Amino acid sequence: MIRQKGSVQNFFEDFHVGQVFDCPTPRVLSDADRVAYIQHTGDRTPRFCNAQGLVHPLIVFHTVLGQTVRQISLNAKANLGYAEMRWRTPVHVGDEIHTTARIVGLKENSNRETGIVYVKTAGLNQQGEIVLEFFRWVMVKKYREDATPYLHEPIVPALAPSVAADQLVVHPPDPFDAHVTGGRFFFEDYSIGERIFHLDGMTVNASDHMSFARLYQNSAMVHFDALLTNGRPLVYGGFPLSIGYAQTFNGIENRIGIAAVNAGTHANPVFQGDVLFTFTDVLEKAEISPALAALRLRMIVVKNVEPSAAEPFDIKKKDTNTLKEQYNERVVLDLDYWELIARKDRG
Amino acid sequence: MIRQKGSVQNFFEDFHVGQVFDCPTPRVLSDADRVAYIQHTGDRTPRFCNAQGLVHPLIVFHTVLGQTVRQISLNAKANLGYAEMRWRTPVHVGDEIHTTARIVGLKENSNRETGIVYVKTAGLNQQGEIVLEFFRWVMVKKYREDATPYLHEPIVPALAPSVAADQLVVHPPDPFDAHVTGGRFFFEDYSIGERIFHLDGMTVNASDHMSFARLYQNSAMVHFDALLTNGRPLVYGGFPLSIGYAQTFNGIENRIGIAAVNAGTHANPVFQGDVLFTFTDVLEKAEISPALAALRLRMIVVKNVEPSAAEPFDIKKKDTNTLKEQYNERVVLDLDYWELIARKDRG
Amino acid sequence: MIRQKGSVQNFFEDFHVGQVFDCPTPRVLSDADRVAYIQHTGDRTPRFCNAQGLVHPLIVFHTVLGQTVRQISLNAKANLGYAEMRWRTPVHVGDEIHTTARIVGLKENSNRETGIVYVKTAGLNQQGEIVLEFFRWVMVKKYREDATPYLHEPIVPALAPSVAADQLVVHPPDPFDAHVTGGRFFFEDYSIGERIFHLDGMTVNASDHMSFARLYQNSAMVHFDALLTNGRPLVYGGFPLSIGYAQTFNGIENRIGIAAVNAGTHANPVFQGDVLFTFTDVLEKAEISPALAALRLRMIVVKNVEPSAAEPFDIKKKDTNTLKEQYNERVVLDLDYWELIARKDRG
Repeated sequence: MIRQKGSVQNFFEDFHVGQVFDCPTPRVLSDADRVAYIQHTGDRTPRFCNAQGLVHPLIVFHTVLGQTVRQISLNAKANLGYAEMRWRTPVHVGDEIHTTARIVGLKENSNRETGIVYVKTAGLNQQGEIVLEFFRWVMVKKYREDATPYLHEPIVPALAPSVAADQLVVHPPDPFDAHVTGGRFFFEDYSIGERIFHLDGMTVNASDHMSFARLYQNSAMVHFDALLTNGRPLVYGGFPLSIGYAQTFNGIENRIGIAAVNAGTHANPVFQGDVLFTFTDVLEKAEISPALAALRLRMIVVKNVEPSAAEPFDIKKKDTNTLKEQYNERVVLDLDYWELIARKDRG
Repeated sequence: MIRQKGSVQNFFEDFHVGQVFDCPTPRVLSDADRVAYIQHTGDRTPRFCNAQGLVHPLIVFHTVLGQTVRQISLNAKANLGYAEMRWRTPVHVGDEIHTTARIVGLKENSNRETGIVYVKTAGLNQQGEIVLEFFRWVMVKKYREDATPYLHEPIVPALAPSVAADQLVVHPPDPFDAHVTGGRFFFEDYSIGERIFHLDGMTVNASDHMSFARLYQNSAMVHFDALLTNGRPLVYGGFPLSIGYAQTFNGIENRIGIAAVNAGTHANPVFQGDVLFTFTDVLEKAEISPALAALRLRMIVVKNVEPSAAEPFDIKKKDTNTLKEQYNERVVLDLDYWELIARKDRG
Repeated sequence: MIRQKGSVQNFFEDFHVGQVFDCPTPRVLSDADRVAYIQHTGDRTPRFCNAQGLVHPLIVFHTVLGQTVRQISLNAKANLGYAEMRWRTPVHVGDEIHTTARIVGLKENSNRETGIVYVKTAGLNQQGEIVLEFFRWVMVKKYREDATPYLHEPIVPALAPSVAADQLVVHPPDPFDAHVTGGRFFFEDYSIGERIFHLDGMTVNASDHMSFARLYQNSAMVHFDALLTNGRPLVYGGFPLSIGYAQTFNGIENRIGIAAVNAGTHANPVFQGDVLFTFTDVLEKAEISPALAALRLRMIVVKNVEPSAAEPFDIKKKDTNTLKEQYNERVVLDLDYWELIARKDRG
């Protein structure tokens, strides 16, 4: 709505259902993206470090999400959720990623200041194959708070509560060598209901999170502008996601890579100086092939406390006033996802 | 003049007109340089992000300038100006850059503590083609403040006030696709005299600016040594230049790349914690080909205030004591340059 | 000994002599690793910046050491020393590095809280050739401080005090061009006993040292976890080593690359905010071929003081109470190594 050349941007009123955006800027992913990802996260998942040139699924996610920011979420007040996220085609070094975003739902909030925008996002490679697709919904500011609502009825897409295990896209993995992962646990060793506390705490430095967001050309101003944020730029929510995923390597070393996200919530904000820790609950198990299987996992990233088996940790708590369940103020990310993992007897 | 092995360095007295330096260290530019540049600046100019392997002109600039520091400007007190800067040959991933610097002018200052060194710098690729050339002049310390001036007459080169539009080197650009830039403005949409305020503020973190300077092997001590600088290392002037250029993408999305610099002034220093904003004045317009044109732009990078159309911002102010015009203390960079940009009707 | 999945880790009691570890995670080294190294250190050694694709020996060192951390030194209290370190095969862009670690000695400390683990480490390329090998010994915590010592007799390997010059592995260097190094000193110009003070101080920022450690997938918690370390994460000892080596370029510009480490001591810890300076003592000289020679050098990296020829600097001091010699509290690294260097008359 703002039409000066240097500050063109979309507010809630600018979207309509069916609208499709060709997102800037197409980006080639290279060896350098693999190394930059390791530098920022310390991730050690073997398939994304060796000479095969496979690009980490979370690099693809950050690239695609970053490409949508300029048009979709520059005026987002909150990133509310994800659904039906699937990595469909592996990305290799040299592939060029281009993203489209389609508006699939709109719902004005009762406060008349914001609305919820539902977006179906697809990242494509240079052959036009979809490499990643997902729904997300974000709360976006209206341009004029007092504007008459133009939407008489909300349009909300029907979204699956989870991706079925048989919808996971499994590509013939490279010959898997458990001797070089450092891990002794395979699919068969995990039990539904088990909670895994991962070693490692990671301090978030200002430069780490800003350079991570710039790397994926995410231009949301709140991540960078200390004037706008009273000296506390908000950490891009994808940063604790990748830090958490890197931390979960200790205990899930024989993983093949994240294949789908069923649901995700950025529960509380992260700021410079926070220290992140992660634990994982095993939700579901699914056999896929003689060599391969999938674990449905719930990854919880927390800040400034190291959860351990010794002390109970409540992911959600009942608010003493409202009696509503809400996230523990230490939780920053609650991610429900499918992880591919090697089986003990690999065919 | 200091001749201990580990601290050999040039002072004003060490230069003479006609002297030519082969600058260390030749450097290959790779995909990793493209990614590192994005990581530090967030630049989204499409041509330098896609699979074509073109290297951003400002990467070439920082590489070439960095190579001259060890011999030319290690004892610089100030980087005074640039002139006649032209990118002459595109640089691709895999090219190796080597720099020569020729002393073309010398002028001792009346305080007898410093002098001005005029340098013609050329960056060359592995075929010996000039990829970038420019004049700059720097104020360099003398080794002995009380030394008798050895220069009876200053030698100052004649420099053009600007690069003529017909001297811009235009290479057949890749097929330009405005659908993926996110921009709706073309050459025809800009008016001389127009001021564009660009979205985005960028906070400068200590690690960001130091790793940027190290990346280009700029070894000027003031950028890194907190003891030497009373805890406030000076940010390399190329960093706000690249941050500003990245910020100007919002509003000039259909640009092809910077082609020449007419003049540049580092008006005030930048330190860790400063937040940078940018606006652009349109100075001149020039048609080049049916598909392509050039805008002469004045990019102003400021710190710790977000200029907007709502409030007048004076780039320069009259000092109340001296009555001389001087830069607003918020201005850090004043850059007069030629930008290539797509035409609406591209042939 | 801790057997929850996410915190499996080795303590002193977990090691036995003869045990061999296949270390996670094999890693391909690319152009991006060359650039990331330059970004973190500012290193300007010509051979590792040009188009030949050679990987800096210290990148290889950090990669190999980082790979051993998960199994060997996660519970290290101190990294005590190195011996017989030799780079045996040059590493090129595209090589994949895999590391094995063999326990060659064990010695419980008299306090019964820790023990010393001696490890022979070898980094191999994809052909199985050893690219780097070294001994190191680390002080590792016991799982139970009060446990009965299970080692009746310490086993300590016999280690050479230095690598003999004729054991240095010299590969035909690329045609050496002293015109592009910026250096005027060759092998013949250095004298045994000479001390070289190198220009440059480098401030250590939190993000710099953490991203350097993550880059090499070094997962020791003390480098990252501000809760564990009372807000002062310990800088990975390899960071001042690489900063120091980059600083020694001023004065040793015609070097070919580090070829062996005779001994190394991390004398005092480094924390965020420290400023590092380096000086070098020339210990020994050895001719190798008509074009090439070796200097045995002692590199001393210090913090928060800039040593100079003007003031004497004692590397070690006698403690006034114990009368024992110990490191000056400013010294962070004492490295005795062999550097290959060009001869003035290169055959």
